Amino acid sequence: MKNLIIGQSGGPTAVINASLFGAVKAWKEAGQPGHALGMLNGIEGFLADQTVDLSETLSEHDLALLAHTPAAYLGSCRYKLPEDLQDAVYPAIFDNFREMNIGFFLYIGGNDSMDTVDKLSRYAAMTKSDVRFIGIPKTIDNDLVLTDHTPGFASAAKYVAATVREITLDASVYQQRAVTIVEIMGRHAGWLTAASVLARKFEGDNPYLIYLPETPFSLEQFAADLEHAFAKSSQVVVCVSEGIADAGGTFVCEYSDAAKLDSFGHKMLTGCGEILESFVRERFGVKARSIELNVSQRCSGMLASETDIHEAALAGAEGVRAALAGETGKMIAFRREADDPYQITCLTQNVTAICNLEKKFPREWIAPAGNDILPAFLPYILPLIQGEPEHTIVNGLPCYLYRR
Amino acid sequence: MKNLIIGQSGGPTAVINASLFGAVKAWKEAGQPGHALGMLNGIEGFLADQTVDLSETLSEHDLALLAHTPAAYLGSCRYKLPEDLQDAVYPAIFDNFREMNIGFFLYIGGNDSMDTVDKLSRYAAMTKSDVRFIGIPKTIDNDLVLTDHTPGFASAAKYVAATVREITLDASVYQQRAVTIVEIMGRHAGWLTAASVLARKFEGDNPYLIYLPETPFSLEQFAADLEHAFAKSSQVVVCVSEGIADAGGTFVCEYSDAAKLDSFGHKMLTGCGEILESFVRERFGVKARSIELNVSQRCSGMLASETDIHEAALAGAEGVRAALAGETGKMIAFRREADDPYQITCLTQNVTAICNLEKKFPREWIAPAGNDILPAFLPYILPLIQGEPEHTIVNGLPCYLYRR
Repeated sequence: MKNLIIGQSGGPTAVINASLFGAVKAWKEAGQPGHALGMLNGIEGFLADQTVDLSETLSEHDLALLAHTPAAYLGSCRYKLPEDLQDAVYPAIFDNFREMNIGFFLYIGGNDSMDTVDKLSRYAAMTKSDVRFIGIPKTIDNDLVLTDHTPGFASAAKYVAATVREITLDASVYQQRAVTIVEIMGRHAGWLTAASVLARKFEGDNPYLIYLPETPFSLEQFAADLEHAFAKSSQVVVCVSEGIADAGGTFVCEYSDAAKLDSFGHKMLTGCGEILESFVRERFGVKARSIELNVSQRCSGMLASETDIHEAALAGAEGVRAALAGETGKMIAFRREADDPYQITCLTQNVTAICNLEKKFPREWIAPAGNDILPAFLPYILPLIQGEPEHTIVNGLPCYLYRR
Repeated sequence: MKNLIIGQSGGPTAVINASLFGAVKAWKEAGQPGHALGMLNGIEGFLADQTVDLSETLSEHDLALLAHTPAAYLGSCRYKLPEDLQDAVYPAIFDNFREMNIGFFLYIGGNDSMDTVDKLSRYAAMTKSDVRFIGIPKTIDNDLVLTDHTPGFASAAKYVAATVREITLDASVYQQRAVTIVEIMGRHAGWLTAASVLARKFEGDNPYLIYLPETPFSLEQFAADLEHAFAKSSQVVVCVSEGIADAGGTFVCEYSDAAKLDSFGHKMLTGCGEILESFVRERFGVKARSIELNVSQRCSGMLASETDIHEAALAGAEGVRAALAGETGKMIAFRREADDPYQITCLTQNVTAICNLEKKFPREWIAPAGNDILPAFLPYILPLIQGEPEHTIVNGLPCYLYRR
């Protein structure tokens, strides 16, 4: 009669709720007599006894909406558990588990969340607790190791590709020379920015230049690249990861010694897109615009990938199955069996081997000059962005599930 | 055997190509022996003899794609004709008309484009030319007078509403106090920002605060409004028009030194969101983020309104019919016959009475305190955003028509 508890942690994605949906559905289908509980705002809320009974409160209709609702239905947190397993927080958490009769713990998140799963499962082993801990991967950054890809990435990639395609159309309407810089999320890994290569309508189309954090960025090389691009077209669209950095390791966004001070005397946060915009205007005297795709790239339900939604739900369901089968300290992972026709299988990996590593975008998929993405990336990315979700539309707008 | 020539001018929208589609289709259906030509980059390209034969080059398949392609297929310009009708540019244009055997001139655009239609039709009257000039309205700003609304507005409004709804979900995942400021296009008219009221999932939901250029903005009142909003929720989403200004007429974005002039001498407004973000951080010491919806609000084909696409095509077709019927110096306009069931009829209005006026958002639809939109706006806006376009999706991404 043990209960299941599920939490969401880290930044929102378009499909973190699809994993929640998949887990609740699988729990029900497994015919478990215990309840599926949700912790509000992750482990932080759990410590404050904030939980909700998902088996009781979510109808079939709610569950269907949940699968297509972006962001995090249960709320999230950025709480990092102490390194020291002797810390008083651990017995507090496990007391809660006993009180609530928790047998299974699912945590949907990225790197930091896998760290939570790792620590809790190690504490459980240490204290001979039989609570089982499973991580469900989630990150638009696609930077978790030991899995082909992570739920959340494909929807963000699809959003980036579709939106940059529209931006290239928008950028081409005037005749005069102009540079449009699109800043895309990704501090250390360029997977999402690389997806902007899909925006091209034909070979040799905009975006002409794409820069990832994986290769050193140089303003002088950028200027030379722009000169080449202008030879092709007056309108140049450039896609950059927010985390591009130079050979010395300095982030381009840190170049803002042009220190934009606001009227209150505070330094205003400047993205690398804005820095490059100023650089282009200064160097080339042309019209320049920077566009930060911002949070929509991680929370756009309308432009999500149906493949991603399906796989996120699958990962949630597999998490329940693995926990019920007695596994613990594991993350659900995908292994790609084939690109075409696309096929994956699920497996489990040790979280300890995942939680403190980052999977970079492969150097061999980046052009030697570090300013473009090579076609070798396409068989990897294309299957992931296929399929458009069927949304429930009410009064012209998407209907989403929310807590009040 | 006269030919028709069509141009697109001003900023892109999601449906300016739908008007082009509607015009070309109506011209074909009218069985006109002459050709439907397109001027590239508006009147500026026409002066440089840059035209394309649309009847010859666009297949039925192309036309179907065109109707769903955002931005401006023919390219655009921001060229303003001289006030002095004695200027040498006028005979040059009309010589071109004679050479190309142009009988009908359609110009799809906003305020400045209607000014072009006005001047050309006045010059035609002065010189007894029989070329007929018709304007097709297009602007996401919805600020043209003598028409219920303008094509382009509804799709932008739908994009804003859907995107802000997703942003409110994203903004609510953490527990700590935070303010998210969404900056929406609109220098002088707040129609588009007002549409963010549709993002609310229930009465009393985020976005809690909405500010338009139509009422004076005060930082102190904003701070007081935020205090009230924090009483409702820790996470507050605020929507502002880029052109909000204080009682003295100073734009909020001018509170920093970032203001620049564009080629028309218009002030380029960037960053009132950033200014408010800094203000919130300074005053309340809470997490603050500003999001500029940027060009996607005017060029998102994927989130366009099918009603808008349909009406834009209708306006293009009506333009052809009006020109063939002998009208000139007119703009196609919509009159609303009923809200529910929604019904409009088309009519023509004198461009002279349109081209230098701006239709503001009605004061009676704004809350007395100037910080919210009243429900009276809903019967006006809701019919406009209904319907989702069926896109041609190839390899997971929208397929659009483009010139190479």
